[in-house]
Amino acid sequence: MTPNADRPAAAVTAVVDLNADVGESFGAYRIGSDDELLALVTSASVACGFHGGDPAVMRRTVAVAVEHSVVVGAHVGYPDLRGFGRRPLAVPPDELFADVLYQLGALDAIARAAGTAVRYVKPHGALYHAAAADPAVGRALLTAVRAFNPALPVLTLPGAVLVDVAADVGVPVIVEGFPDRGYTAAGTLVPRGEPGAVIDGPEEAAARAVAMTVDRVVTAVDGTPISLAPRTLCIHGDTPNAPRLAAAIVARLRAAGVELRPFA
Amino acid sequence: MTPNADRPAAAVTAVVDLNADVGESFGAYRIGSDDELLALVTSASVACGFHGGDPAVMRRTVAVAVEHSVVVGAHVGYPDLRGFGRRPLAVPPDELFADVLYQLGALDAIARAAGTAVRYVKPHGALYHAAAADPAVGRALLTAVRAFNPALPVLTLPGAVLVDVAADVGVPVIVEGFPDRGYTAAGTLVPRGEPGAVIDGPEEAAARAVAMTVDRVVTAVDGTPISLAPRTLCIHGDTPNAPRLAAAIVARLRAAGVELRPFA
Amino acid sequence: MTPNADRPAAAVTAVVDLNADVGESFGAYRIGSDDELLALVTSASVACGFHGGDPAVMRRTVAVAVEHSVVVGAHVGYPDLRGFGRRPLAVPPDELFADVLYQLGALDAIARAAGTAVRYVKPHGALYHAAAADPAVGRALLTAVRAFNPALPVLTLPGAVLVDVAADVGVPVIVEGFPDRGYTAAGTLVPRGEPGAVIDGPEEAAARAVAMTVDRVVTAVDGTPISLAPRTLCIHGDTPNAPRLAAAIVARLRAAGVELRPFA
Amino acid sequence: MTPNADRPAAAVTAVVDLNADVGESFGAYRIGSDDELLALVTSASVACGFHGGDPAVMRRTVAVAVEHSVVVGAHVGYPDLRGFGRRPLAVPPDELFADVLYQLGALDAIARAAGTAVRYVKPHGALYHAAAADPAVGRALLTAVRAFNPALPVLTLPGAVLVDVAADVGVPVIVEGFPDRGYTAAGTLVPRGEPGAVIDGPEEAAARAVAMTVDRVVTAVDGTPISLAPRTLCIHGDTPNAPRLAAAIVARLRAAGVELRPFA
Repeated sequence: MTPNADRPAAAVTAVVDLNADVGESFGAYRIGSDDELLALVTSASVACGFHGGDPAVMRRTVAVAVEHSVVVGAHVGYPDLRGFGRRPLAVPPDELFADVLYQLGALDAIARAAGTAVRYVKPHGALYHAAAADPAVGRALLTAVRAFNPALPVLTLPGAVLVDVAADVGVPVIVEGFPDRGYTAAGTLVPRGEPGAVIDGPEEAAARAVAMTVDRVVTAVDGTPISLAPRTLCIHGDTPNAPRLAAAIVARLRAAGVELRPFA
Repeated sequence: MTPNADRPAAAVTAVVDLNADVGESFGAYRIGSDDELLALVTSASVACGFHGGDPAVMRRTVAVAVEHSVVVGAHVGYPDLRGFGRRPLAVPPDELFADVLYQLGALDAIARAAGTAVRYVKPHGALYHAAAADPAVGRALLTAVRAFNPALPVLTLPGAVLVDVAADVGVPVIVEGFPDRGYTAAGTLVPRGEPGAVIDGPEEAAARAVAMTVDRVVTAVDGTPISLAPRTLCIHGDTPNAPRLAAAIVARLRAAGVELRPFA
Repeated sequence: MTPNADRPAAAVTAVVDLNADVGESFGAYRIGSDDELLALVTSASVACGFHGGDPAVMRRTVAVAVEHSVVVGAHVGYPDLRGFGRRPLAVPPDELFADVLYQLGALDAIARAAGTAVRYVKPHGALYHAAAADPAVGRALLTAVRAFNPALPVLTLPGAVLVDVAADVGVPVIVEGFPDRGYTAAGTLVPRGEPGAVIDGPEEAAARAVAMTVDRVVTAVDGTPISLAPRTLCIHGDTPNAPRLAAAIVARLRAAGVELRPFA
Repeated sequence: MTPNADRPAAAVTAVVDLNADVGESFGAYRIGSDDELLALVTSASVACGFHGGDPAVMRRTVAVAVEHSVVVGAHVGYPDLRGFGRRPLAVPPDELFADVLYQLGALDAIARAAGTAVRYVKPHGALYHAAAADPAVGRALLTAVRAFNPALPVLTLPGAVLVDVAADVGVPVIVEGFPDRGYTAAGTLVPRGEPGAVIDGPEEAAARAVAMTVDRVVTAVDGTPISLAPRTLCIHGDTPNAPRLAAAIVARLRAAGVELRPFA
């Protein structure tokens, strides 16, 4: 892709993972740019049939991930295909526990048949946000992960309450970096809809990816430098320019001597 | 339940398993007599969320099975909740493979969180019949089972083509005995709707269960004695009198010195 | 059913309607006591396939309603069969408008084929509460009703914000009476879980039904008499003793000279 | 689009309708080229939420149809979103009757809110083929249409058994013309997969559209001229080049003096 792809920089300056959402197609419906993204990222969050995906799509997606040596994670969501898992849904903790366990097992069976396994967990959409902010939701998610495999890391948002819940439950948690999103001085993401929430342009996002990874800093909307050291950077898979964004980030990271390596 | 339950006959005359379908409730909808059946049978075919069941129901059902030391099997079906998996649906083999793998993994994760695991597979309803008779359907089912765990036995119908397919694929298959169904001279079941298809009365069915198990014979509708040695007897879980039928069979088998023991 | 059923009291002291939720079965799953309730009530809120019900169930339910000259209303809900429409779901107003219109049309076609039509609307479960309290949800519901037929009344909760929204949108609204629920001094229902929320015993509920209807008063949990004049009384269809409750209410109302007549 | 669009040929040589499948998107999933097709065709078969489509998609699709003065028909299907209604599903006639009525009413309510109504019916996918060939399926479909509105015509395949069933039931039926499909000497379509089944190229299909419409003839795969006089021509909406095909057909038909006019 870039000269660096084949001829890595002499010295590795840092290591980071790139994760993207994939496998959200359903039946005859195609969504996302899975094949292009799976050629670029190091970790793939595969939908598990609740908010998107179906068993045949999951199988196809995992096969492409394996082909590219991309690590497979479970992108677990609310059972709301029509709303693509983005509509808040009041699932009682007991049911959420069972729903998460079900999705993890389903994807893991498909992954094992392809010679790999589920290596991390990322909640999707409305569940991602509810798990980050609501301790009861977070605990239900994490106890399900622990029941499945307590070594699996769970991805979450900067500033998430989930980080504390995870420490209590005993499940590793990883705070993602978001190169295409603005940060507040407190280190949380600027809410969508507010000025500075989204970084326009793959090149600017790529520059921020390098800053986050190599310099371990990102500039907040008010100019404050924020220290951070994300182990993985999130590429939103559902935007039309996701492959261009991913390609720009990969190219700049490699040019800066960053090694792309799965975190899990 | 019977005097024999606590004081087994001096000599064990035979060993057999009793399997029943359970866990087919969904959300607020309750169906079947799971708690009563799980206190009687030795193997439980648990629905996996496609034709019936949901993750929370699966979890509850597995917990009750574990409490009674009942072995858990996966009752995999077509994705047709409205039709309860009983309507023939032309699922292409590739999709069926993925659907079966998905269901096996989902239930296994729930079973493992409860300290057990999926120990056998039984296709449900229209899939049971299609897999028994159509080699392409049977092969898709069996290759999915093999990909998941080649040691898992698959239950099927007397006279099923699936027996040959299983030999070819390399998955163990077990032909069930049906105490409440009539047999033809060829050893297959009398089709429902024909005279002699269904055995009326728990006591007659229980007598046939003993004959099948101890004497290894059942009398066909035309009077021909059929040799058979079923390793498991099927109790249909969805009839109102299923618990009475199961209780009668258990009592008679124990009285005849038969040991009830899971096949898996 | 009661002597009054065949020999009505000399003078009609009041008129009221009894409504119950029916048609919530789905496929092989049966729920509720539809046949018994439809022999007692004057209005039937029929589920429309989103939170419960399916087209075949709707057709059967409407047929029984027609047989008993019971008026058919549309019991519209969120698209969440697993949660039986009881889990709050953040459906955007635009989608809710379309979902309600869809359900109204579907049931109306089935009702017209049976010689009747949809005569009123009742939101179900989480939608009932959201529409009562959240003006944006209420407006989406009511504008859909208006688009379908602006003459259809919509049932709601005592104290609902929906009453004001309905005045603004131009759709008639009817506040239900709840004989089996406690009232606050402000005339709203005591929230479930609080003391006095539920009236135990069909006879006490029946006495309250008479008080509401004939005396136009109900005693709040703190003893305050509340004036009200409900045009319809709600019988919750999903409790096991719903038919007994309905029978007691019908008997007492008739004994008190109340005429049971549909409001629509 | 073409000079003929604004300046029609002096003499109208024939009249035909063009119908296409639209409104098959679902939630976040987009499929088809609805906006382009709705600018070209005269009749739109709108999916009703069973095999594709959802209430919000239906509303948007009907709005665009109304904007272009395109007639709205109900594209009714099997309840199988995952299979896009293309997998044969054994729905019992009673349930099919209810399913069709439900879909007709749902779309009609949405159409009426937009100032139009359902004017015709076209079964979709596996139901289209089953209804054409199996009298029990056809009768269930047609009696549902008759119960809804006996004046609504139903579209079907050349050579369909449904034509005879419709005469018996008393519902009008219209045999579609297929400009992009090969015909047998018997006037039926060459099955997909056989040589000559599909006509390659928009221009050749457009030439056949003119032949069917103006000359009332199409040449079968074996060279036999087949007489036919289709009142509507089908444009398959789910192929990537559907808009190009439709545009070529429209251009050639107009150049040949054919008036495009809805049949309903």
